[in-house]
Amino acid sequence: MPNLAREPQERLAADRFHELFVRFQAVRATSEAICAPLAIEDFVVQSMPDVSPPKWHLAHVSWFFEAFILQPYLRGYQPLDPRYDHLFNSYYQTHGTPFPRANRGLLSRPTVSQVYSYRQHVDLAIGDLLAHPPAEYAEEIARRVELGLQHEQQHQELLLMDIKHILAQNPLLPAYRSDLRPAPLQAAGMTRWQRYPSGLRQIGHGGDGFAFDCETPRHRQFLEDFRLASRPVTNGEYLAFIEDKGYERSDLWLADGWTLSRQAGWQAPLYWQRVDGAWCEMTLGGLRPLDHEAPVCHVSFFEADAFASWAGARLPSEAEWEVAAQGMPVRGNFLETDHLQPVAAAPLGEGPEQLFGDVWEWTASAYRPYPGFRPLPGSLGEYNGKFMSGQMVLRGGCCATPQSHVRASYRNFFYPGMRWQFAGLRLAREA
Amino acid sequence: MPNLAREPQERLAADRFHELFVRFQAVRATSEAICAPLAIEDFVVQSMPDVSPPKWHLAHVSWFFEAFILQPYLRGYQPLDPRYDHLFNSYYQTHGTPFPRANRGLLSRPTVSQVYSYRQHVDLAIGDLLAHPPAEYAEEIARRVELGLQHEQQHQELLLMDIKHILAQNPLLPAYRSDLRPAPLQAAGMTRWQRYPSGLRQIGHGGDGFAFDCETPRHRQFLEDFRLASRPVTNGEYLAFIEDKGYERSDLWLADGWTLSRQAGWQAPLYWQRVDGAWCEMTLGGLRPLDHEAPVCHVSFFEADAFASWAGARLPSEAEWEVAAQGMPVRGNFLETDHLQPVAAAPLGEGPEQLFGDVWEWTASAYRPYPGFRPLPGSLGEYNGKFMSGQMVLRGGCCATPQSHVRASYRNFFYPGMRWQFAGLRLAREA
Amino acid sequence: MPNLAREPQERLAADRFHELFVRFQAVRATSEAICAPLAIEDFVVQSMPDVSPPKWHLAHVSWFFEAFILQPYLRGYQPLDPRYDHLFNSYYQTHGTPFPRANRGLLSRPTVSQVYSYRQHVDLAIGDLLAHPPAEYAEEIARRVELGLQHEQQHQELLLMDIKHILAQNPLLPAYRSDLRPAPLQAAGMTRWQRYPSGLRQIGHGGDGFAFDCETPRHRQFLEDFRLASRPVTNGEYLAFIEDKGYERSDLWLADGWTLSRQAGWQAPLYWQRVDGAWCEMTLGGLRPLDHEAPVCHVSFFEADAFASWAGARLPSEAEWEVAAQGMPVRGNFLETDHLQPVAAAPLGEGPEQLFGDVWEWTASAYRPYPGFRPLPGSLGEYNGKFMSGQMVLRGGCCATPQSHVRASYRNFFYPGMRWQFAGLRLAREA
Amino acid sequence: MPNLAREPQERLAADRFHELFVRFQAVRATSEAICAPLAIEDFVVQSMPDVSPPKWHLAHVSWFFEAFILQPYLRGYQPLDPRYDHLFNSYYQTHGTPFPRANRGLLSRPTVSQVYSYRQHVDLAIGDLLAHPPAEYAEEIARRVELGLQHEQQHQELLLMDIKHILAQNPLLPAYRSDLRPAPLQAAGMTRWQRYPSGLRQIGHGGDGFAFDCETPRHRQFLEDFRLASRPVTNGEYLAFIEDKGYERSDLWLADGWTLSRQAGWQAPLYWQRVDGAWCEMTLGGLRPLDHEAPVCHVSFFEADAFASWAGARLPSEAEWEVAAQGMPVRGNFLETDHLQPVAAAPLGEGPEQLFGDVWEWTASAYRPYPGFRPLPGSLGEYNGKFMSGQMVLRGGCCATPQSHVRASYRNFFYPGMRWQFAGLRLAREA
Repeated sequence: MPNLAREPQERLAADRFHELFVRFQAVRATSEAICAPLAIEDFVVQSMPDVSPPKWHLAHVSWFFEAFILQPYLRGYQPLDPRYDHLFNSYYQTHGTPFPRANRGLLSRPTVSQVYSYRQHVDLAIGDLLAHPPAEYAEEIARRVELGLQHEQQHQELLLMDIKHILAQNPLLPAYRSDLRPAPLQAAGMTRWQRYPSGLRQIGHGGDGFAFDCETPRHRQFLEDFRLASRPVTNGEYLAFIEDKGYERSDLWLADGWTLSRQAGWQAPLYWQRVDGAWCEMTLGGLRPLDHEAPVCHVSFFEADAFASWAGARLPSEAEWEVAAQGMPVRGNFLETDHLQPVAAAPLGEGPEQLFGDVWEWTASAYRPYPGFRPLPGSLGEYNGKFMSGQMVLRGGCCATPQSHVRASYRNFFYPGMRWQFAGLRLAREA
Repeated sequence: MPNLAREPQERLAADRFHELFVRFQAVRATSEAICAPLAIEDFVVQSMPDVSPPKWHLAHVSWFFEAFILQPYLRGYQPLDPRYDHLFNSYYQTHGTPFPRANRGLLSRPTVSQVYSYRQHVDLAIGDLLAHPPAEYAEEIARRVELGLQHEQQHQELLLMDIKHILAQNPLLPAYRSDLRPAPLQAAGMTRWQRYPSGLRQIGHGGDGFAFDCETPRHRQFLEDFRLASRPVTNGEYLAFIEDKGYERSDLWLADGWTLSRQAGWQAPLYWQRVDGAWCEMTLGGLRPLDHEAPVCHVSFFEADAFASWAGARLPSEAEWEVAAQGMPVRGNFLETDHLQPVAAAPLGEGPEQLFGDVWEWTASAYRPYPGFRPLPGSLGEYNGKFMSGQMVLRGGCCATPQSHVRASYRNFFYPGMRWQFAGLRLAREA
Repeated sequence: MPNLAREPQERLAADRFHELFVRFQAVRATSEAICAPLAIEDFVVQSMPDVSPPKWHLAHVSWFFEAFILQPYLRGYQPLDPRYDHLFNSYYQTHGTPFPRANRGLLSRPTVSQVYSYRQHVDLAIGDLLAHPPAEYAEEIARRVELGLQHEQQHQELLLMDIKHILAQNPLLPAYRSDLRPAPLQAAGMTRWQRYPSGLRQIGHGGDGFAFDCETPRHRQFLEDFRLASRPVTNGEYLAFIEDKGYERSDLWLADGWTLSRQAGWQAPLYWQRVDGAWCEMTLGGLRPLDHEAPVCHVSFFEADAFASWAGARLPSEAEWEVAAQGMPVRGNFLETDHLQPVAAAPLGEGPEQLFGDVWEWTASAYRPYPGFRPLPGSLGEYNGKFMSGQMVLRGGCCATPQSHVRASYRNFFYPGMRWQFAGLRLAREA
Repeated sequence: MPNLAREPQERLAADRFHELFVRFQAVRATSEAICAPLAIEDFVVQSMPDVSPPKWHLAHVSWFFEAFILQPYLRGYQPLDPRYDHLFNSYYQTHGTPFPRANRGLLSRPTVSQVYSYRQHVDLAIGDLLAHPPAEYAEEIARRVELGLQHEQQHQELLLMDIKHILAQNPLLPAYRSDLRPAPLQAAGMTRWQRYPSGLRQIGHGGDGFAFDCETPRHRQFLEDFRLASRPVTNGEYLAFIEDKGYERSDLWLADGWTLSRQAGWQAPLYWQRVDGAWCEMTLGGLRPLDHEAPVCHVSFFEADAFASWAGARLPSEAEWEVAAQGMPVRGNFLETDHLQPVAAAPLGEGPEQLFGDVWEWTASAYRPYPGFRPLPGSLGEYNGKFMSGQMVLRGGCCATPQSHVRASYRNFFYPGMRWQFAGLRLAREA
């Protein structure tokens, strides 16, 4: 419904907010599509404190829009239920008291159907707001909607990680979906070692598009010569490490990793199990024979580091990884590819393969602020900055990441002992 | 379809098994009626290790019939899913490996609908078996079906306890039902003290009807003179204990109770909370103002014992309780009354009131075997005997107990720190 | 220095207090004799929360005299260090705040030498008080000194239990003493079964001598016919249980015992270890080959109960045990015998053997108050009564108990999972 | 006893080994001097798993010489007790199985006196070896003796940290020494901000003297412009943070720090306590009024980081710190100064003050390997490399560090939640 009376600039703004709303609808629809195959019961379970019940994710991402956009900027906004502001606050201490994370699985209510109503309530209100954004806040609203969409994309990956973990606890080993796109039958090629010369490099986000605060500022780092493997480590290679007693050799491990590995009884990546003497792997498509050619996945930083030691190599620093990825197209096995599992890639050309997609790659770098880092102002400053201790950086996205969500400067982070994310590794070496 | 060729005795047996099946159907229907008000999501949650998800209860009681009756006695019986034998085994170590109790809330599958199919599968098979019970096992089958029904009745009470606990964790404080029968508006009378003379008494089950192994054998105990309060302690009386700083006075408490109470931060019975300065209570009908006249409920043995010390009295032994209850009619506020909450009872006559129903009454007796106790043979011997350490006996049934399930010799038992069962107390004194 | 002016009754009282002081000195000297073989370092260690460092024991028993006798009754008494009233209060909540039990091993000060000075300070003051007891409190003082001595005797046994536990944690396996009296080389006889007829019996303390409050009042219990084994179970018999996979058969165990045993990895009694394929036992005399003829020791109630199930028998109730022990002389292998380890006894006559000494015998009875039980008034009421939940009664004393400390009515108590006390078992049966 | 027949080079070597042995004796004597004021009881206690009993330290540093020098290089070496190789192995998994760290406080034996004999045994053997070092291993022996001495110096600081922690647990608050050098009565000057220009810098050890493997290789890092505070943060400044509710404001804290701080109930640095409304501090000289001018000490990384946020500043990176310290003399308040507590320093000149000594300064840098890092070969490779996860770097030494032990490139490391080391902070800012 074009308003001919509007000035051109105003119309430009209206177009921009219309586009934003179209993208909003698309991202919101993807979250629901991810949950479509679930039974109602699957939405409720929290299989460990790090996992959230799927219905909690669906509600929380809506709460994000409500708490940070609708409440401050939509005049007269009425929440569907004011108690949700407590229930679905994840960790924003400066925005009330979050419901205890470890207890999310105790909440049978609101029901899945009520959560969907909540989503609709928020969607309508966002639609209203974006149709008539108050001019003085329009920039900030656009910025926050963008952040809210990026946030929801992160939760799309989390949803898949958590659904996998929930179903894998069940001795019935139910498949999330039986119609996933099958893996191609191809062999991973030999690893080649790409050389990168020493020099002063720029890393961090510098362009126009969206980036999280933690990716900034763009800054200089000096790198020595290094070499990077042309592809991630495969299941077959990791199996050789296992068979060479990699899990029993303390000299290969960081001390904290050794202690954790012994306590937890690790003998293989998460989701691997032996069935009648053969290695199988629980996937979102159910239990499958291990694909030796696919990138190894669901290993902790400690396992990645021990493997690298065993292989006489090391993990790349995040700066090394980013230098290698700069200028590469963001293509690969992502959420949209619909494998939802890393797969082997045929070697295509000269450059490194599979930097993007398939598996997040553990780096050697602790997740710490870049020089000159400034978190977002207000409660949104809690988004990234406060997690900058004890965690390691991973790069490149995975088979459950929406393709439009990732980029060369993207910094993901997990504690070094975590394994339920789709994480693998790529080796590096001194030149 | 009467078979005229049958011998009278055979017909008698057939009648008996027909009656048994009618009762089987009624008990099975009651479990499902209890769950009817639940949302599907409510069936999944395990709010603490002692609680089981409602759908687990529904499946487990069916497993009991399958494991102990259908598998051994119904020729050609095919289980719906052989893996259920592991998932729904509660604690029968001699019958395979039970699925870990604390992980029951991790199982989103089988879904509620699949659990109902499982129930139907078992119901049909039991129908077949009871229609044509193999003569040589008929006695044992009848005994085991009876045990299975008593077992399912226990789980009906557990279902209500667990549903209450699950919903009470939720800050939304959802009501299980809004159509419960309201409490009568009446005052609990003054406590009178009934005297009972010393002498050699018989306690334990001795008659024909069903009793659990732990109620036998009937045996003699010598009791000194004692007095028993005519009714349970009320909320109003318990409030006086709280207001007299009962929770802060270590001298009133058993040492283990004091430690636990401090660690857990107990200040009142479970489910009590202050709302705007007034005491309220979470019930199966939602949050309600505290009824001062109703029996106090959801107290641990430690609290019951501390209250008795404060009141200058003591808890009765289980033998004292049973002597008082012998010959009394089993009437009171039970599951069928549909309060699902203890209520005040008007004093009716001479005898002790509310021995049956309303609240389980903590006794001073540890749950230990009676002289000459013999557990049932085989796996069913695990039903009661192996729990005879560390727990205390409670007597009389409660507002969530099926009326036909309880009797004067019935021994219920819980650890002294547990509070989620409907447990209160009645005072006793030396004469 | 006889005072001729004194009245005869006064002189009688003086004699009585003089005698009491002589006994006081003897008991105090025994505690120090027990500690004489220790290195100073041994006095400091707390090997688990249940264990106290030896110097803490030495100080605490002195504190008992200070807190309950010197402070209230010795005019002008000056404590050596007022802060000891906090440090050496074990669990008397009504007498200030006890120093946290689990932290006793963090206290390097006061040093051993300072603790001995503290003992001397208390000894001198008690000497003063008993030389001139104020007439109006004389009775109460005498009663409390007696209680203090009984208390110190309990700690003498605790000292030996704790020293054994402390030294056994050390891979060097140091012996407490190398000059202990060696065990006689004799075989335990065959077990005979003594019969005891049913009837109304009296148990509990009824005479003039000292008894703890928990042994009273003497009261009637009806006992059915029963049989009691003529001697405790031996190491050799217990070995047969182990070799018959007693630790792997869940059907023999109480549920709590099974869980604990699996968690703790029990495969044998505490202090047993295999050395080059042969069973050895850590003792106060160091590591020794297992004596198959000696009573089994350092088993929990759960192990005792499981053994009894395996043997087709049961544990006696404490009333049964006491009836058997009534009238028997308190003779046996006690502290004074200087084995400090249970030893085989040659069968001597008709009656049951080794009821007293060698090992405390687990009974089937929970530690609960006798009918009509009244704890001591004031803080001393915390001595026994508040521990009457969750523990089991043991009877008869052991090789580390002072002979004069025990009697037929004596009730010892430990949690069913505890093993560091010198505890064994004797079997019982229905007649 | 000069051997005139020796070649000059040989004599040079002999001189060098003689010098090494003189230094060996001096370092060994220092450890014993540190322990001289202790009561025997103080040598035994382990006040938390991170702390070791002083006698364990004394033995472990001797074991280091035994395991890595005497066993491989002294022909015919007989250990005093072969079991010590297990007891005093700290964490060298590739050299047998270390005795569990958390259980070191359970070992009353060997006694202190036996530990001193062990030291003497090792000293004599090292004397033998250094008098006649086998030529083919002479270099490696010298290297390892040097490493052993540096190791023992680290334990000298650990001894003082642990002694302080042990004594501070005791409500008697005993002083370690009453003759410590008193703090000068002077005010810390105003903080000035030194500017450092951006550029490519070299950090890491590059010279001839001793350095740990983790300080190498020397390598280039690009640094942006930055400013560094001229002195550490003082107690007085930290008090302002406390009074401004720094411990209650979640927005100042890293998420892990906030969680830990709430759980542990932190309200002030470790060892601070309020006495009659005034802040005091437990020191090695006993409880003292807080010195507002002295550098704040015993704060965790999380507290340091929260303070810096509150102050609108940040912590320096380890590279920034090292650039500032390069070329500065290693002077300051060290072990030899005999304060054993940080003290205020009067501002002297232009440069930054107190970079060395007083307090270790938390940096913003995670403890990770330098580019091209290679751990030592063999078991000694476990010395540093395996701890490179989850810890943060501290720089500069403290009042308990031997002066000769530290240098500009020295990297100390602790987990971010640890507080018992002498750790404070210095602020940094973007230029």
